[in-house]
Amino acid sequence: MADVVSFRKEEPSGLLQREVSGPVLRLTLNNPPANVLSIELMEALHTALDAVAHSKDIRVVVLSASGKLFSAGHDLKEMTAHRADADGGRAFFETTIRLAADLMMKITRLPQAVLAEIDGLATAAGCQLVASCDLAICTDSSTFCTPGVNIGLFCSTPMVALSRASHRKQAMEMLLTGETIDASTAKDFGLVNRIVPQQYLRQVVDKYAAVIASKSPQALKIGKEAFYRQAEMSLPEAYDYAVGVMVENMLAGDAENGIGAFLGKRMPEWKVD
Amino acid sequence: MADVVSFRKEEPSGLLQREVSGPVLRLTLNNPPANVLSIELMEALHTALDAVAHSKDIRVVVLSASGKLFSAGHDLKEMTAHRADADGGRAFFETTIRLAADLMMKITRLPQAVLAEIDGLATAAGCQLVASCDLAICTDSSTFCTPGVNIGLFCSTPMVALSRASHRKQAMEMLLTGETIDASTAKDFGLVNRIVPQQYLRQVVDKYAAVIASKSPQALKIGKEAFYRQAEMSLPEAYDYAVGVMVENMLAGDAENGIGAFLGKRMPEWKVD
Amino acid sequence: MADVVSFRKEEPSGLLQREVSGPVLRLTLNNPPANVLSIELMEALHTALDAVAHSKDIRVVVLSASGKLFSAGHDLKEMTAHRADADGGRAFFETTIRLAADLMMKITRLPQAVLAEIDGLATAAGCQLVASCDLAICTDSSTFCTPGVNIGLFCSTPMVALSRASHRKQAMEMLLTGETIDASTAKDFGLVNRIVPQQYLRQVVDKYAAVIASKSPQALKIGKEAFYRQAEMSLPEAYDYAVGVMVENMLAGDAENGIGAFLGKRMPEWKVD
Repeated sequence: MADVVSFRKEEPSGLLQREVSGPVLRLTLNNPPANVLSIELMEALHTALDAVAHSKDIRVVVLSASGKLFSAGHDLKEMTAHRADADGGRAFFETTIRLAADLMMKITRLPQAVLAEIDGLATAAGCQLVASCDLAICTDSSTFCTPGVNIGLFCSTPMVALSRASHRKQAMEMLLTGETIDASTAKDFGLVNRIVPQQYLRQVVDKYAAVIASKSPQALKIGKEAFYRQAEMSLPEAYDYAVGVMVENMLAGDAENGIGAFLGKRMPEWKVD
Repeated sequence: MADVVSFRKEEPSGLLQREVSGPVLRLTLNNPPANVLSIELMEALHTALDAVAHSKDIRVVVLSASGKLFSAGHDLKEMTAHRADADGGRAFFETTIRLAADLMMKITRLPQAVLAEIDGLATAAGCQLVASCDLAICTDSSTFCTPGVNIGLFCSTPMVALSRASHRKQAMEMLLTGETIDASTAKDFGLVNRIVPQQYLRQVVDKYAAVIASKSPQALKIGKEAFYRQAEMSLPEAYDYAVGVMVENMLAGDAENGIGAFLGKRMPEWKVD
Repeated sequence: MADVVSFRKEEPSGLLQREVSGPVLRLTLNNPPANVLSIELMEALHTALDAVAHSKDIRVVVLSASGKLFSAGHDLKEMTAHRADADGGRAFFETTIRLAADLMMKITRLPQAVLAEIDGLATAAGCQLVASCDLAICTDSSTFCTPGVNIGLFCSTPMVALSRASHRKQAMEMLLTGETIDASTAKDFGLVNRIVPQQYLRQVVDKYAAVIASKSPQALKIGKEAFYRQAEMSLPEAYDYAVGVMVENMLAGDAENGIGAFLGKRMPEWKVD
C-alpha cells in the first residue's frame, strides 16, 4: 500500500472536498445549504471519479456530504434560469440530466468500491446517488424521498437506480406519493445497507472502507465490473461470462498469492500494479 | 379539478361496482361469494379501465372487493363446464387466461395509478391482481396464496406478476407449497405496501388516493409509463430512455408550474388537458 | 405413489450420500471436514441429479450436508495443485468452475423441487448452491458468506446466483466485504425461506418436502420450468409464454382431476406417467 499514513484535504472550500486517507478517497459534497447537484458540482464529481479510476493507491471511495442534507438533487434554480434560453431550456436540461445519469453509471463502472455515507435527507437525484453507490450507510435520522411528483417532474432518472435497488411496489410508493421514508424503511427497501447512530457514522464507514481496502484491488476491480454486467444477463449468459471471469481471476497474481496464503495460514500480500 | 364534490355509484348491483369520488374511481369486485374472475367480470374490468384511460378527471383507480374474499381467481366452474366443448375447452381456456393476462398488463399501462385495497384472501389470479397493481394496501387479517399446485394447475400466469414483485425464493415458496401467507409476510415479500387495521382500511386507502390525486396528472402519467418500461432495460438503455423522458417532462407545462411554485413557496396548479 | 414406505441409504460412506424416503431423495454432501465441492463430489451431484431427472417416483430433492459446515465451496487445494500443470491450471480451473455453474443451472432445470437444508456455514460456491436451490431452510446458527475477495478471488460465479436471490446492495455487501451474515440476515436478504431451531431442522424440511411431494408432479414440473424461463423475459413475453403454459396445464390430466376433486370436495389423485 502506498501512502497509508498520508492524510490530506484538498480544496477544502470547494464545492467538492477531496480527502485522502491511505487507500480511501473521501469526496464530500459541499454546496450549501442543500448540496444540490449543479452542473459545477457534477463536473467536479466526474473529474474526481475520472482521476481516481486510474489510481493505484485508492481502493475505496466514500461519498459524503457536509451540512444537514445529503443532497436535494438537481439545481432547480439553475435549471429554471435556463427556461429563458432560446430553446426554452431544452439543451441545458438535457445536459444536466445526462450529466447526472452518466455520473451514476460512472459510479457503477468505477474499479473502486463506492460507499455512500448519509446523514440527513437524500432526495430526488440525491436519492439516486445513494441508490447508485455500491453500498450505503446512514444515520438513524436519515431520510429518503423521490418527490419530483410534487413539482410536476416525476423522478424518472432517479427511479432507474431506485427500481434496481428495491422491489417494484416499494419504489412505486416512493415515486407516486413523493413521501419521505425513514432510515429503517430504506434498509428494508434495500436502499441502504446499515443504519448507525450519528456519533458512530464516520467510524463505521471508515471501518467498512478499511475492510474493503484491505482486499485485493485486482479482485475488487474484476468482481465489481462483473457484478453489474452479469446482473443484466440471462442465467446461462451470466454463467458463461462469470466462468470466464473466474478463470482469469484464478490466473491473476493475487488469487495465487491469496489462496496460497489462505492454505498456508499466512496473511496475503496484494500486488499493486 | 373537475368534479371534486361529485360522488356517484353506478350499477350498484352489478358484478363490478363503479364509484367516483372526485378524482378517484373505485372499482369494487362484486361477484359473491369469492369474487371469481369470470369472463363477465374480467370484461367489465377491461371496459372500466379502457374508459378511465382517457378520462381527464380520474387520477387514481382503487381496486377493492366486497365480501370476505378479495378474489379467488379464475372461475373454475365456468372453465370446467367448457371441458365439454368440442376442443375439450382449449379455446375457452385460452380466452380466459389471455383475458386475465391482458387485464394485468392493462393495469400497468393505465395512465392512472392503481391501488389494490385488500381485506381478506387473495388467491391465484386474485393474488396476481394484487401483485399487478402499482400499490397494495391490506388489512392485518388479509392473506395471500397461489395454490394452483394443489389442484394440478400451477399458478404460471400469477407467477409472472408475483415474481416481479418479490424475491425468487419467496415467490417459489408460495408457488411450490401453495400455502397461505399472512399480511405481514406479504409486506416482507414486497407484495403489499402497507398493513392497516380493518376499521381504518378505507380511510388509509382514500388518503393514499387523495395524496396521489393531488399530484400533476401529467407527471404521474409520464412517470408510471416510464417506470415499467425502463424496468426491463439494461442500465445504459434505461438511462438513455429516462433522460429523454425527464427532458420532455421538464418542458411540459406542469413541471414549469410546479417548480415555479416550489421555488416561490406557492401551491402548484396542475394543467387539466 | 410408488414406493412410499421404502427407505434406503446408498453409498453411506461415499462423498455423496443418497437416501430415498418415498417420493423424497435426500442427497447429503459428505466430504469432511468442509464438504468442499471437489471435481469428484460435483460429478457425483451431476450424476445423482441426472438420474433423478427421469424418475417418476421422486418428487422432491433435499440437498443437505454432514458435519458442521454446509459447504466451503471449491476445493482450493485441488485447484492449487493444478497450478503445476503445463497451462498453469487454466484448463482445470475452467473445468472446475464450469462444472459448478452447470450444476447450479441443473438444479434450476430439474423437474423436481430442490430444497437446501443448511446447518452451519455455507461459503463461496457453497453459498451459491444454497442460492441456486428453489427453497432453503436453515438452522438459527447457520451462516453464509462469499469471502473470495479475502483470497484475491472474487466470488464471481456465486454472485450470479446470489444477485438473483437478493437485492443488489445486499449481495454487494457480502461480495465486497467477504463478511459472514447470520441466518436472520440471510432470510431478510431472500437467501433462505425459513429458520428453525436445530433440533427441528430435519422435521421441518421433511414436512416441506412432504407438502410439495403431495402435489401433482405434472404441475410442479410445468410450473418450475416456467418460473425460471419467464423470469428472464419482458412482461409481455412472459405473459405470452405463461398463457400458453397455463392452457396446456389445464388440458393435462392432473388439472382436470385436481379441479374436479376441488369442486367435488374430494382429495385429488395425481397421474404417475
